[in-house]
Amino acid sequence: MWLRYESANEGTEISVDEVLNALVFNKDGLLPAIAQDYQSKDVLMMAWMNRLAIEETLMTKQVCYWSRSRQQFWRKGEQSGNRQQLVEMRVDCDGDTLLLLVSQQGGACHTQRKTCFYYTFADQKVLINASVP
Amino acid sequence: MWLRYESANEGTEISVDEVLNALVFNKDGLLPAIAQDYQSKDVLMMAWMNRLAIEETLMTKQVCYWSRSRQQFWRKGEQSGNRQQLVEMRVDCDGDTLLLLVSQQGGACHTQRKTCFYYTFADQKVLINASVP
Repeated sequence: MWLRYESANEGTEISVDEVLNALVFNKDGLLPAIAQDYQSKDVLMMAWMNRLAIEETLMTKQVCYWSRSRQQFWRKGEQSGNRQQLVEMRVDCDGDTLLLLVSQQGGACHTQRKTCFYYTFADQKVLINASVP
Repeated sequence: MWLRYESANEGTEISVDEVLNALVFNKDGLLPAIAQDYQSKDVLMMAWMNRLAIEETLMTKQVCYWSRSRQQFWRKGEQSGNRQQLVEMRVDCDGDTLLLLVSQQGGACHTQRKTCFYYTFADQKVLINASVP
């Protein structure tokens, strides 16, 4: 379906089932999901979702990933309290990546930093760009 | 090395080689790279890089991905002119995802839209959120 909607105009409506059925999962049945703070627009983290995690997240509005290391659902913040509330879910042009606009409680990173992207390449070195709060 | 720097303070310096050598590539030798507009902070696209693409991008400041479908380097904008100039490259806490802050010429998407994420889940449907310019 992705080719079919390439020139579709803003406001074109598609059924949720058509989109979910057309998503292009990798051979482990997963899609990368980028979490972005809906207010600051900071990119917080990247994790993975399978179809059930996507459906649960759309239904509950609490972000649920699939943990590849633990091979189980990972309801973000269930342990730490640092939940991600879904504000909007988007899909890209070829249906293989999700963008989650979220309201993040506390740090998104397990180190408690706001975002996971705390290494910055600078000239000839890499700098830590944020301390643990 | 990722565990070792978890509580490192802002400004801590690490060598580029130490970081590059510690990156956690998937079994195809690739890392996901998220491109974000450094001014608007819109998430533009997600693509893949191998180590050589990362090194070329750091050196030339023109974003170079690895195309999985074509199995070759993909110097973004080489054909279309819609180049991505690298402003800053970041790495996440466990070294398996890159965030590229870029200056994007033209649309990042092959449809000429500004971003690839033009499908939005709304209640009971999915909406196209941008027309082709």
